Amino acid sequence: MTDSPIAAAPEADSSLATARQADARDPLAHLRDRFELPDGTVYLDGNSLGPLPRAVLPAVTDLVRRQWGQDLITSWNVHDWWGLPRRLGDQLAGLIGAAPGQVVCGDSTSVQLFQAMVAACRLRPGRSMLLTDGASFPSDQYLADSVGRLLGLRVVRLHPSELAAYLGEHGTQVAAVSFSLVDYRTGELFDAAELTRTAQAAGAVMVWDLCHAAGVLPVTLDEIGADLAVGCTYKYLNGGPGSPAFIYIARRHQSQVELPLTGWNGAREPFGLNSSYVPAESIERARIGTPALLSMAALEAALTAFDGVGIDQLRAKSLALTQQVIEFADQRLARFGVEVVTPRRPGLRGSQVSLRMPAAYEVCQALIERGVIGDFRAPDLLRLGFPPMYLSFTEVHRGMLTLAEILADGSYREPRFAQRATVT
Amino acid sequence: MTDSPIAAAPEADSSLATARQADARDPLAHLRDRFELPDGTVYLDGNSLGPLPRAVLPAVTDLVRRQWGQDLITSWNVHDWWGLPRRLGDQLAGLIGAAPGQVVCGDSTSVQLFQAMVAACRLRPGRSMLLTDGASFPSDQYLADSVGRLLGLRVVRLHPSELAAYLGEHGTQVAAVSFSLVDYRTGELFDAAELTRTAQAAGAVMVWDLCHAAGVLPVTLDEIGADLAVGCTYKYLNGGPGSPAFIYIARRHQSQVELPLTGWNGAREPFGLNSSYVPAESIERARIGTPALLSMAALEAALTAFDGVGIDQLRAKSLALTQQVIEFADQRLARFGVEVVTPRRPGLRGSQVSLRMPAAYEVCQALIERGVIGDFRAPDLLRLGFPPMYLSFTEVHRGMLTLAEILADGSYREPRFAQRATVT
Repeated sequence: MTDSPIAAAPEADSSLATARQADARDPLAHLRDRFELPDGTVYLDGNSLGPLPRAVLPAVTDLVRRQWGQDLITSWNVHDWWGLPRRLGDQLAGLIGAAPGQVVCGDSTSVQLFQAMVAACRLRPGRSMLLTDGASFPSDQYLADSVGRLLGLRVVRLHPSELAAYLGEHGTQVAAVSFSLVDYRTGELFDAAELTRTAQAAGAVMVWDLCHAAGVLPVTLDEIGADLAVGCTYKYLNGGPGSPAFIYIARRHQSQVELPLTGWNGAREPFGLNSSYVPAESIERARIGTPALLSMAALEAALTAFDGVGIDQLRAKSLALTQQVIEFADQRLARFGVEVVTPRRPGLRGSQVSLRMPAAYEVCQALIERGVIGDFRAPDLLRLGFPPMYLSFTEVHRGMLTLAEILADGSYREPRFAQRATVT
Repeated sequence: MTDSPIAAAPEADSSLATARQADARDPLAHLRDRFELPDGTVYLDGNSLGPLPRAVLPAVTDLVRRQWGQDLITSWNVHDWWGLPRRLGDQLAGLIGAAPGQVVCGDSTSVQLFQAMVAACRLRPGRSMLLTDGASFPSDQYLADSVGRLLGLRVVRLHPSELAAYLGEHGTQVAAVSFSLVDYRTGELFDAAELTRTAQAAGAVMVWDLCHAAGVLPVTLDEIGADLAVGCTYKYLNGGPGSPAFIYIARRHQSQVELPLTGWNGAREPFGLNSSYVPAESIERARIGTPALLSMAALEAALTAFDGVGIDQLRAKSLALTQQVIEFADQRLARFGVEVVTPRRPGLRGSQVSLRMPAAYEVCQALIERGVIGDFRAPDLLRLGFPPMYLSFTEVHRGMLTLAEILADGSYREPRFAQRATVT
C-alpha cells in the first residue's frame, strides 16, 4: 500500500468513511436489487445507457414467446398492444410532472424533436425565427436547422442565459424556442420555469428536451405551464438501448398542433382507412406508425423500478453523489490539471459531473480497463453520470479513487488507450 | 359427416388430395421448422404480422442479458450495435435486389416514407407536384399530403394504371411519384419496372413502398434503376411487432439526397459533436437517431429464416397457394356471394387473396374463433395472406374449408361476432 501515493493519503480514509456512512443512511439503497449489474464494475455511464432492470427480461420473453409467438396478430387486442404508447405515456407523465393524457411514447428522440419543433413553429405562423442552444446536443441543432429550412424560418443559436436579452430585442419575431433542460456536456441544469415564462411572455412557444433530466430530477411540466417537451428513455429511465422516446403536448395545444409525421396511428379513426388525414383530438395525434413493441415492452417493465420511489428522494441522493464527486475532484484531482466543469451550486446541475482534463479520451479508456465506466465527450471532457437508483456512495468513491490512481501513475499514457473505437 | 353439406361435397376430397400432393412435392416444406406456430391455428395473417422465427428468442435474450446487462454501454463497440442498421440493411438489400451499401434499417415505415418523399421531391426543385395512389395505405397518402404542405407541392391521387396518361399531360410538373408495389387491400401487384421507367422518362423521381412485397416476391431495385424505396419488416420478413422499417437510396442519389430528419446518427462525423449537420456521403446519411436495438436484434435473428432460400422458390410456392385459394373460392364460395378481388393473373398479384363478401367483419371473427386467422379491411373485404415459408397446402385447404362451413351454416350471424374490437 505504501507505494501508492493515493491510497496512502490520509484523506482517502476520511472520504471512504464518509461514503460508508452515507450508504448506511441511504433510504434508496434497496433499489439496487431491482437491477442486474456486472460484478466489479463501477458503472458511471447510466446517463448514456441505464443498466438492465431485473423486470425486463421476463417481460420481453413473455412478449416474444407468448404474445407474439402464440397469440400472434390478436395480441393487438388481447394484450392491448394498441394502447401501449398511451399507457407508457401516462406512466412517463408521472415522472415529468404531467397529468395523464399529455404524453405518448414511441420513435426516437430525433423524430420526436422534429415533431415538436415543427408543431411549435406552426402555432405561431406569422413569426420568422426558431431559437436553439448552440451548445446543445448536435441532433437538437441539426433538426432545428432542418425545421427552419422546411418552414422558411431563420434559426438562431444562443445560450439559455441570453434568452431574455435576445427576446427583448427580437421577441416579436420568434416563433419557438428549443432548449435542453440539462446541458449534455457540462451537466448544467437550466431554470425551466423561468425560461418558459420568458419565452411565452414574448409570445413564443417553448420546446424542452428532457433527455438528461427525465427520471433523475423534478420536472414539473404542468406546473410551469409548459408547451411541448420530448425526451429519451434509455438514460435515467433505464429502458434499454434505443428504447422509445416520448413527446408531451400540453392539453391546451392538443387540438391545435399540426404534426408533420402524419402516420396512420395518429388519425382520429385509425381503422377507418380513410384517404385524408383527420388527426385524433387527444394526445393520440402524436402517434406515428407501428411502434417497436419489443422495445416498448422492455421500457414498460423497466419503469417498474420506479415503483414507490419519489423523484425528490432520487434528486436528494443524486445531489449528494455529485457533491461527493465534486469535492473529491477539487481536493484530489486538481493537482493533475482536472477542472470541474459542472456547476457547483446544487440547483444548477443535473446528475452528472464533467471533468475537463488533458488526455480525457485516454483516461476514459484506462478507467474502462479497470472496470470504471464513464464516457468521453470531445474534445477534453470525462463525463460521469450518477444515477441514484443503483449507485452506492462507496462504489462512487472507489471509482473516483481509481481515477486518481490512473492520473497519478500515468498509466493512461500507454499507447493502447489512444486507439479510437468506433463509438466513443 | 353427412349433415355437413361442405364436407360431403365430392370436390372436398379432390381438392384435399391435390393439397396433400402439393405438400408432398413442396421443396420448402422444411422451412416451417424455423418458426414457432401455435398448434391448431391456421395463420393466414402473416401479411400483417409474421409469426415468430425460432431464432428470435435466443437472440433477444442474449442482447438483453449479456450485451445490455453485462457489457452495458461498451456494447456499441464490443457487439457492434453501431453497425446494426447498416448490417441489417445489407441483409435486406439481398432480398429486394439491391447491392450492398444502399439500404439502412430503422424507425417506422411512416418515418421512412416521409424521409423518402421529401428527399425525392427535393431532387426536382423546380417541379410542383407529388403523385400518390389514392387507393394505397392511408399513411402513404397522409404523409404525401404532409410532404406536399411542407414543400409547397400539390398532391395528386391517381391509380398506377393512370400514371402514363397523367404524365403525358403534366409530366414536366411532377417532382415525384410514390406508389405501393402491392395494393394492401386487393393484393394487386404493379409493374415496378414499367412504372419506374414511365416516371423517370417524365423526369420524376420514383418512390416505392415495398411493405407488401419484400420477402415474398422478386423485387429487383437495382435492375430496374429504382430511385428510392421503403418497406416494413414485420409482415413477410417476420421481424416481430413494430420491427424497424428500411429505406433504399440508389447509390447514384446518395450524395445528393437531402433528408429532413437530420439526426446525429446520419452525420458524417457522428461523434464529432459538431454544431452544423454535414451528412454522411454513404447510405449512412439515412440514419436518424438511436435505433431500437431490441427490435433490431429480433429482426436480425428473424432474417436467418431466409438462409439458403431463393426468392424465386418462395414466389413459386406463394403463387401456387394463392392459386389454390382462388380456385377454391370460385368453385365453392361464389354461391355465398363471395367475390375474388385479387387479380387472377399470377403476374398481377402479391401473396394475398382478398375476398369481398357481405358481413366480412363477422365472418372474419367467426373464422378466428375456429382458429383460422385472417383480417378484415373495411368495408367488405376478408383479406387472407399466404406466406410460403411456413404454410402448407393442406392447412390452407383446411382454412378455406372452415370458411366455407361458416358461410354455409350461417354461424357468423351470431351477435357476438358483430362486436367491434379496438383493432380490426
